[in-house]
Amino acid sequence: MTDLHSLETPALLLDRACMARNIQRMQAQVDALGCRLRPHVKTSKSWPVVQAQRAAGAASITVSTLKEAEQFFAQGERDILYAVALAPNKVAHALDLRARGCDLAVIVDSVAAARAVASAVASAGMPLPTLVEIDSDGHRSGVRPGDPLLLEIGQVLHAAGSLAGVMTHAGGSYDLDTPQALQAMAAQERDAVLACAAALRAAGLPCPRVSVGSTPTALSATDLAGVTEVRAGVYVFFDLVMAGIGVCSERDIALSVLTSVIGHQPAKGWIIVDAGWMAMSRDRGTAKQAVDQGYGAVCAADGQPLPTLWMGSANQEHGIVSMRDGSCPADLPARFPVGTLLRVLPNHACATAAQHDAYRVLDGGAIVDTWPRFSGW
Amino acid sequence: MTDLHSLETPALLLDRACMARNIQRMQAQVDALGCRLRPHVKTSKSWPVVQAQRAAGAASITVSTLKEAEQFFAQGERDILYAVALAPNKVAHALDLRARGCDLAVIVDSVAAARAVASAVASAGMPLPTLVEIDSDGHRSGVRPGDPLLLEIGQVLHAAGSLAGVMTHAGGSYDLDTPQALQAMAAQERDAVLACAAALRAAGLPCPRVSVGSTPTALSATDLAGVTEVRAGVYVFFDLVMAGIGVCSERDIALSVLTSVIGHQPAKGWIIVDAGWMAMSRDRGTAKQAVDQGYGAVCAADGQPLPTLWMGSANQEHGIVSMRDGSCPADLPARFPVGTLLRVLPNHACATAAQHDAYRVLDGGAIVDTWPRFSGW
Repeated sequence: MTDLHSLETPALLLDRACMARNIQRMQAQVDALGCRLRPHVKTSKSWPVVQAQRAAGAASITVSTLKEAEQFFAQGERDILYAVALAPNKVAHALDLRARGCDLAVIVDSVAAARAVASAVASAGMPLPTLVEIDSDGHRSGVRPGDPLLLEIGQVLHAAGSLAGVMTHAGGSYDLDTPQALQAMAAQERDAVLACAAALRAAGLPCPRVSVGSTPTALSATDLAGVTEVRAGVYVFFDLVMAGIGVCSERDIALSVLTSVIGHQPAKGWIIVDAGWMAMSRDRGTAKQAVDQGYGAVCAADGQPLPTLWMGSANQEHGIVSMRDGSCPADLPARFPVGTLLRVLPNHACATAAQHDAYRVLDGGAIVDTWPRFSGW
Repeated sequence: MTDLHSLETPALLLDRACMARNIQRMQAQVDALGCRLRPHVKTSKSWPVVQAQRAAGAASITVSTLKEAEQFFAQGERDILYAVALAPNKVAHALDLRARGCDLAVIVDSVAAARAVASAVASAGMPLPTLVEIDSDGHRSGVRPGDPLLLEIGQVLHAAGSLAGVMTHAGGSYDLDTPQALQAMAAQERDAVLACAAALRAAGLPCPRVSVGSTPTALSATDLAGVTEVRAGVYVFFDLVMAGIGVCSERDIALSVLTSVIGHQPAKGWIIVDAGWMAMSRDRGTAKQAVDQGYGAVCAADGQPLPTLWMGSANQEHGIVSMRDGSCPADLPARFPVGTLLRVLPNHACATAAQHDAYRVLDGGAIVDTWPRFSGW
């Protein structure tokens, strides 16, 4: 048990009980929909967090890098989906993971990438289960439902014994903020993959896996009949962007950055702290939402919100905390003297966590553990 | 020797010859000004890079975290300035570094922090050389020239045998883009610390060290008489923000992210690559400059600029490369097929490098070495 006041700042705090509630909520939601939950572990990149998700009922994991696949395979995870369209220079690595016993699946959205898979599969003499990425909302990658490209890709993969199904990610849900719009997006995400699965099957091609997911759509879906699995990542910690979308409240945010007041500019109303954008990340995902949270929302060291304050700007190792309304109360330096500890809630948990090597695990107001995390590729 | 095509992407490339030219240029400039160069190693956080700076004539180093101080002290660096106002929870650590033989100096800009230093110095029975941070341009921390606070802080530190001088960082230079304005800012930065040094000395207080620096002002200064040392960081790699300010050209940027084309959305003119904001960072420092570079400027794998393209947007592991003019040439997928390697120049070298564990060192078109880097606090 370590007191918060004995930590050097900045430090990344993880509220264990809050995380456990978030995990339970998503697991219960996906269970109720009759799907398997395949958490996207790019958010935490930390084994104790993944263990907690698996212990609560998650069946398997999704990763954003082959490094995540390697790290969690080494910890005993076998059923892993690498959910970024496979670059040709990663096919050999993917097959090597399979040769070592990892049940890795990959995704593609082009004939060229499908052919790279087929060619490597032929050389290796073993299949590489591959899902076709579907574009359900126009926000990024994938084959649009109805595009004849789907069958072309499907046929190349099937001929290589490697067609495993279809998947999509409705990242467009991040731009919504009403339950109605989110429910509609969840239905749209589902309908896109169901249409593509049906098209493959109608052409005599197999489509055992039908995978959807984003945190906002997963929490908003009411009917996922025909979908086999749901992927979601950021729900495990939540963040200010998710609060702005409306799928959590600020009280559900399990991650925060502990920082110290190191100075003031009283005439400007600035409280200068030792967490800058290197500790918070440069993510400004709330800038386009109804409430711009700057570089983060500010709480006292005990987690109590200080809603009149925000981190309005940041340099590399300096955060500038000020009044949201731009006022300069004369007593600010006295209320927050040098040495005061504050906690700053992140815009985007994935981005903020990636700036740190470890989570300081908070329970009952004290640090009870340190969980390492990795980064890179 | 490794061919670029055998790397898994994304990967951080460092052009060694280009870096060497950047190091020589800054060293020659600071030598000509008659000052010592104290590079800010927060940019690289990598020992081989620091070694190259020291071999070229740098006298000592500046750090942004005590972790940098620890890492480079372990490599043999002794003369280290920690250039972020000291939080009270780091005073014991700073003194411990000194007790182990590190000639660490720190900075403060408040009486409260000076008193924390004085109190710890009294307990430890050894001094902690401390510079007073001066605010030369209103952009962040520091005591304004003429503020009586300077003498108050100076007296507290001097009574503790720990007053080492004054320092400033004209970060406001990042908002300028003409040689005239940059020269004026360099003079303003110098004049601010010289005035404060004179004020301390007039009050009978010592001020042996007079330290200034930012990459743009260091490269623009014409007369630093009275200044003892210059600090600068990002010049070692340069980046698009520095090119926008006008202190380097894009050809001087030693850092780039190697990425693979993983898909296309032809109707939108999108080339999708496997370097998203996790590989580039979320830094959008060029957004406020005359030329907004999106998430980065695009080059061919051999480093040749492709000036009609940019990384206009990015998701976590996906970059979206498109025409800067928004056009959708029909031959884009054919010109940049899946598997094509591209290099993306960063907006901000400090931010992009921090997203990676190592530099792949490029020389003569091949990878000749891998230099590890660290991050965190």
